[in-house]
Amino acid sequence: MSSRPGGPSRPGEMRPSPEFDRIRSLIQAVGASYTPEVALGPGDDAAILDVTDSEVVLVSTDLSVEHVHFHREWLTWDSIGFRAVAAALSDLAAMAARPIGVLVSLAIPPEVDDRTLDEIAGGVGECLREHGASLLGGDLSRSPGPVVFDVTVIGAAVDPVRRSGALPGDELWVSGRLGGAAAAAAAWAGGLEPHPAARRAFERPTPRLIEARVLSENAEVHAMIDLSDGLTADAAQIAAASGVAVLLESERVPLNQVLENWASPEAALALAAGGGEDYELLAAIAPGTAQPAARKLARELGVGLTRVGSVTEGSGVTWIGGKGEGIEPPAAGFDHFSAEA
Amino acid sequence: MSSRPGGPSRPGEMRPSPEFDRIRSLIQAVGASYTPEVALGPGDDAAILDVTDSEVVLVSTDLSVEHVHFHREWLTWDSIGFRAVAAALSDLAAMAARPIGVLVSLAIPPEVDDRTLDEIAGGVGECLREHGASLLGGDLSRSPGPVVFDVTVIGAAVDPVRRSGALPGDELWVSGRLGGAAAAAAAWAGGLEPHPAARRAFERPTPRLIEARVLSENAEVHAMIDLSDGLTADAAQIAAASGVAVLLESERVPLNQVLENWASPEAALALAAGGGEDYELLAAIAPGTAQPAARKLARELGVGLTRVGSVTEGSGVTWIGGKGEGIEPPAAGFDHFSAEA
Repeated sequence: MSSRPGGPSRPGEMRPSPEFDRIRSLIQAVGASYTPEVALGPGDDAAILDVTDSEVVLVSTDLSVEHVHFHREWLTWDSIGFRAVAAALSDLAAMAARPIGVLVSLAIPPEVDDRTLDEIAGGVGECLREHGASLLGGDLSRSPGPVVFDVTVIGAAVDPVRRSGALPGDELWVSGRLGGAAAAAAAWAGGLEPHPAARRAFERPTPRLIEARVLSENAEVHAMIDLSDGLTADAAQIAAASGVAVLLESERVPLNQVLENWASPEAALALAAGGGEDYELLAAIAPGTAQPAARKLARELGVGLTRVGSVTEGSGVTWIGGKGEGIEPPAAGFDHFSAEA
Repeated sequence: MSSRPGGPSRPGEMRPSPEFDRIRSLIQAVGASYTPEVALGPGDDAAILDVTDSEVVLVSTDLSVEHVHFHREWLTWDSIGFRAVAAALSDLAAMAARPIGVLVSLAIPPEVDDRTLDEIAGGVGECLREHGASLLGGDLSRSPGPVVFDVTVIGAAVDPVRRSGALPGDELWVSGRLGGAAAAAAAWAGGLEPHPAARRAFERPTPRLIEARVLSENAEVHAMIDLSDGLTADAAQIAAASGVAVLLESERVPLNQVLENWASPEAALALAAGGGEDYELLAAIAPGTAQPAARKLARELGVGLTRVGSVTEGSGVTWIGGKGEGIEPPAAGFDHFSAEA
């Protein structure tokens, strides 16, 4: 399939109108380059991708709604754009896929002016460039209420990792450190300015795209998920999808540095294990096969991999404390449908 | 790539929670079947598609925002769901692609209860079944304001038709009859109940997926677009993308039956040529090659194909009246960004 003269990096010409002037300017502000499989980028009725036959295509979509998923008082507009894209790309990381590109739909109320739109687009573009993903298209509409993002991600993988392959005996490992984003949200909710590291974890999350591929290529990963709803809630997804039970050990949970001197160890654990939006990876790995991947992640990417539990026969999630005693789950996962955040 | 035991038609098990109970029930209410390339449907972090190497993949996304694109007072909830999906699928028709599936993101205010959600899902499922498309995933969130749909469509084609290939000398043809949806919107805006045929055109639009493939396989189609913003506005997109001028002839525009006895011929033409959301096809076709496709469309699908103008050198859109005289464009296209609909 040949692409348009000038190649896909030049969006198709659109008719003159205030709507299309804005869209043209946004595409320019995003400024992402094009991955080789993009035969046609934004500007026509659909983008065209030419994916090799050795890979499958992965698609996922992620809503970010103002007053539910974010508050404009907490973040700069470029961070709001960055975060909406990072959260969506994280679903590709969860399957150890490489990103191809994203479609960004954006509904905005009248007070969001062109300069603000450019800031949002700047954050979107920053996240895309960081992870080598293209802008494939999107939609722009007025909103009579909140700012709404919907980001669809398209990726490719030879052998994607699902949630459903965990086996009794597997070890559960988590990337990075947990609770930073929840610590920031807790501070804002209490009227405080978060610690800079917590703020950074919330506003500039890193979808673990490279880490997931290093992990899946260097360990026997049976199942994986990204931590969007929190360790307890997302471990429950692996348990439900795989038809197994998950045992998590409170003393093993790697806490974000900002939680190390938190008010109480229980409160710190509640944020690290119950708070969502860390976008770290949780993987069920065949026993004894994780160490080479852990060493490679630490050496090449500076990212820790920590054993937090194990998979057994049964169902659901069980927590144990430092003496092996059963404890209550540190907190419920954040539920974007029923929560009043 | 092997799919989960049980095949993709059974969504992955999700953890117990009110959010996932709703999502499970919605997937069931949609009730779409799975096209062969769907290796994994909804329920994991991403859907998995296995598309053959002879085809390219097409992706597009389409927002439908309450008070901007639709009003809950005008339509039943199942029609609102149907229409959001039909509008998005129409972008695949514009490129003569076959649909694989859709991702449906839905943000809903608290007063939209589970029964209403099931009605929306029923309309989504009806449209998917009518066009052989699968539900691949989506997202569900609370909205502190309007109901917002964002529907992403994924399709495949051997040789997709772009907007950018129109050549001077091409003939412009349109499928079906125009202005039905605009007539319904005009009636509602005036406090009237629309004619049943106009209501049907608005609430149950037909994305011309089959028609587009018949057309592209039986005529030399150089460029195509679907009429979402209106004949004038969408012809301007072909003109801009192809670097050509478009000449439209007012007397040739095929009017929806409800416009035949409209208040004045000028008002009828304004709705047919300026009103959007008919989702018919507008194609630039090599001279003299359209007739076999027109006959096939009429005979096999009962859909008319009407010559409405031609492509010349230059830029922009020009209208001429019955005596060949220049006339004002019947109306501006509806602009979902700046309009106050």
